[in-house]
Amino acid sequence: MGPLTDARWMAAAIALGERGRGRCAPNPNVGCVIVRDGVVVGRGWTQPGGRPHAEAIALAEAGEAARGATVYTSLEPCAHVSERGPACASSLVAAGVARVVAALRDPDPRTDGRGHAMLEAAGIAVVTGIGADAAQRSLAGFLTRQALGRPHVTLKLGLSLDGAIAMADGSSRWITGAEARAHAHVERAKSDAILVGRRTAEADAPVLDVRLPGLEDRSPQRILLASRHPRGGGNDEEWITIASPSAIATLEGVDWLLVEGGMGAAASFLAADLVDRLLLYRAPVLIGGGRMLGEIGLADLAQAHGRWRLADARQLGSDRLEAYERVRL
Amino acid sequence: MGPLTDARWMAAAIALGERGRGRCAPNPNVGCVIVRDGVVVGRGWTQPGGRPHAEAIALAEAGEAARGATVYTSLEPCAHVSERGPACASSLVAAGVARVVAALRDPDPRTDGRGHAMLEAAGIAVVTGIGADAAQRSLAGFLTRQALGRPHVTLKLGLSLDGAIAMADGSSRWITGAEARAHAHVERAKSDAILVGRRTAEADAPVLDVRLPGLEDRSPQRILLASRHPRGGGNDEEWITIASPSAIATLEGVDWLLVEGGMGAAASFLAADLVDRLLLYRAPVLIGGGRMLGEIGLADLAQAHGRWRLADARQLGSDRLEAYERVRL
Repeated sequence: MGPLTDARWMAAAIALGERGRGRCAPNPNVGCVIVRDGVVVGRGWTQPGGRPHAEAIALAEAGEAARGATVYTSLEPCAHVSERGPACASSLVAAGVARVVAALRDPDPRTDGRGHAMLEAAGIAVVTGIGADAAQRSLAGFLTRQALGRPHVTLKLGLSLDGAIAMADGSSRWITGAEARAHAHVERAKSDAILVGRRTAEADAPVLDVRLPGLEDRSPQRILLASRHPRGGGNDEEWITIASPSAIATLEGVDWLLVEGGMGAAASFLAADLVDRLLLYRAPVLIGGGRMLGEIGLADLAQAHGRWRLADARQLGSDRLEAYERVRL
Repeated sequence: MGPLTDARWMAAAIALGERGRGRCAPNPNVGCVIVRDGVVVGRGWTQPGGRPHAEAIALAEAGEAARGATVYTSLEPCAHVSERGPACASSLVAAGVARVVAALRDPDPRTDGRGHAMLEAAGIAVVTGIGADAAQRSLAGFLTRQALGRPHVTLKLGLSLDGAIAMADGSSRWITGAEARAHAHVERAKSDAILVGRRTAEADAPVLDVRLPGLEDRSPQRILLASRHPRGGGNDEEWITIASPSAIATLEGVDWLLVEGGMGAAASFLAADLVDRLLLYRAPVLIGGGRMLGEIGLADLAQAHGRWRLADARQLGSDRLEAYERVRL
């Protein structure tokens, strides 16, 4: 039960929470592991639609084994009763757990420390902060909604070495390879909604679904950035249209938004400083004279520095993926 | 004296040869190590101006210890007598070495196997091919001149994530950081000549020297790509002007050419398929609407693939360096 062990169980809880991503908004995609005598007796993650919560699933699995156990959860157990279920903090008290390790305090004003207080009042040891960085990344959709009142935005770009997303004639099939496209489909599955610009919707009539075996049912809501509805942009009933990037705040049930293009939509979101994460798939090709990112309102070069921090990098076939996070001080 | 030992000594010889880069054209920057009973008794590399050769330096250092020793050299010892010195093959025979390990056969028609034949005729064991890939890279300037009748060309670009080399107003100080600039200065020191386009020469009046402690005397020849001589482009006497990329074949004493920009010069060299190596310094910034690579004559996307192979990648401060080699089948 030392710090190293706690960190490893927490990593497992956070990984379980990833399974709920893109399906449980507006609830956070929490993960939970219950451990007794070094053995996992319960596991859970927030279910599609947001209920049951991760802790409720894990407690149900553990049953009587939860008594005296340690509970690892990526977010503070909720303190509020809902018509859809009891407060997780109450359930944990009732189950007789001995210890709760939570990565983060829940900023939801209905909880915000009250979950931990309820546990401590019942004599349960509470430890916080373990795995906080990873949990913040894993729960960024919910946390961004709580802090900024809008979804977390990932901007995805498939690029050549010289920064082109398409040739001058618009052709872009394919700059990146099959492995990169498969990875991008997983990113879609982890999103509540995908957004494209009007020209992309009209030109490519993109299906924007998840084309991966076993994940076909994970296709997210489709959003269009346009002042008017497009011609031929798929089934009209399946699209939500917004007129400006700032309107993403009004999208209900969308905590994780993936902006897929084209360059016009990308530049609009960057100019509005509404991109939290850049996902760059870069192919080892040179295009020359291709379509590139337009004006994003940068006044001078000094202003460009210090805004993006490399968060992940990996090789995908012959392409390289780099993920950058917006540094917000 | 097994294969592993041979490979390690050869790597040392090739590394020594790197010390001659950018200073010994039209002669190859060969490196040489002489080993007797597991001890290095002589080391050498081609000297500035091309003479003495690496083997001559190493033999002079070894003296009598060369008798019965093994000689590691990145290129076949020369077979031709010059007014500037004897043939290295003859010198090795005279010194009584027992064995010569050469990474590559010398394509120079004056040698081209005759060096190895002279050694074997004198009863010296000759082994070839060990470290061939690394030697080809290290001697690419000389080998490109021999095979294609022109210098080896490295194109250097400092880029943003979105492929801009400058903002729309032309400002580019600084996209990349101090570590990347220092690395680029080492690349200058390893080049016989640096080329820029007319606009870059006029706008930046670049000094194009090597600003690194101890390497000030390694500043290469300056070449201008322009139909006419520029205004204010530094001291006129120090520049050679060529009118098109293909004219690099006429540059005497230039086996290693570094093309530094701007985008016009870069596009000209790429369109002419005269770039052998891409050196991309990429900063974690987004510019938007900046200056990017122009038309390079690509007919379709399929044609872009398979041309560039990643040869090196490393982090330089907050920037990333990637080196790509042109795949020539």
